[in-house]
Amino acid sequence: MEALKQRIHEFITLKPQEWEQFSALVRVETIKARTYLTKAGMLASDIYFVKEGLLRLFHLENGKEVSTYFACDNQFMSAYSSIVTHKPSLEYVEAIEESEVYAINFHQLRKLYDSSHNLERIGRIFAESNYLCIVERSLIMQTKTAREKYLDFLQNNAPKIIQRVPQHQIASYLGMTPESLSRIRKELAVV
Amino acid sequence: MEALKQRIHEFITLKPQEWEQFSALVRVETIKARTYLTKAGMLASDIYFVKEGLLRLFHLENGKEVSTYFACDNQFMSAYSSIVTHKPSLEYVEAIEESEVYAINFHQLRKLYDSSHNLERIGRIFAESNYLCIVERSLIMQTKTAREKYLDFLQNNAPKIIQRVPQHQIASYLGMTPESLSRIRKELAVV
Repeated sequence: MEALKQRIHEFITLKPQEWEQFSALVRVETIKARTYLTKAGMLASDIYFVKEGLLRLFHLENGKEVSTYFACDNQFMSAYSSIVTHKPSLEYVEAIEESEVYAINFHQLRKLYDSSHNLERIGRIFAESNYLCIVERSLIMQTKTAREKYLDFLQNNAPKIIQRVPQHQIASYLGMTPESLSRIRKELAVV
Repeated sequence: MEALKQRIHEFITLKPQEWEQFSALVRVETIKARTYLTKAGMLASDIYFVKEGLLRLFHLENGKEVSTYFACDNQFMSAYSSIVTHKPSLEYVEAIEESEVYAINFHQLRKLYDSSHNLERIGRIFAESNYLCIVERSLIMQTKTAREKYLDFLQNNAPKIIQRVPQHQIASYLGMTPESLSRIRKELAVV
């Protein structure tokens, strides 16, 4: 669990006892490719930290999958709205490839907030970074051209995501058709 | 400052000393109609709690104003991304009508996080509720019809916002032209 500990310690230094409380909530899970960690309609309760693998978050719009986030090694992923509201998820978390994840039960973590200021701080930092992530995506979607969106995607995602997420999923993430994405990729290749 | 205290106490009960620390960060400001509390390019640092009045949050897309949030009496408002990232705001906070607000300096509040678990909790709850607010708007914008969007707006906003925000600003909030909004309003009036 060293990678998770290290990631947490980038935000905050937990006391040994706090790390013990936190790590007691963590389960290691192996998820086969093309299977779901969360489905729409489920009450989501876990935040995932990808030890190794590739996950995506998506929802359905008129029956079509719209990807909204990808995560690979050492990144977090969750159907966060459902976790915070305790309402059924509108989103799916799917493993694109076989993945090994640390699943952290967020409701149990919340119960620990009363006993540890530092653990509550993790919750605050997590909420703030999720907010920024969705605002950034939303502004990019609203204000950039298709080509700018793709360049931004290349700049702000890990190579594993850029190289191994299927093109039609990247296209839906960028709000364009696979044909448009293919055209932009060709244009950029010849620049 | 009783209304603000009451609103905070809906989330969390502060000890007298914590309320004293918190309220020391609050300034009372009167803002004239059609003036800005935050402008794009500024580093935003204050969260506003509307004592009385009407505020809106908007940004520019290709030179056009897109409203993304309205707040009236006893509601919070801020250019939250800029506050959290310490980067220049992409958003404007404007008073639609003359307003009296409590301005809370969020950077000073953050400095108090170390000394008070409860004040950090306010930060966590604030971040979570801002996240949910933007996710909800984003899902509505992506999945509902124009008519459903307007009905949802009527259901989830205070009467003061529904009655006193100019129609073209409501239209931009709903991602439609003022003409479409006018048509939907007429259709609903005859149902």
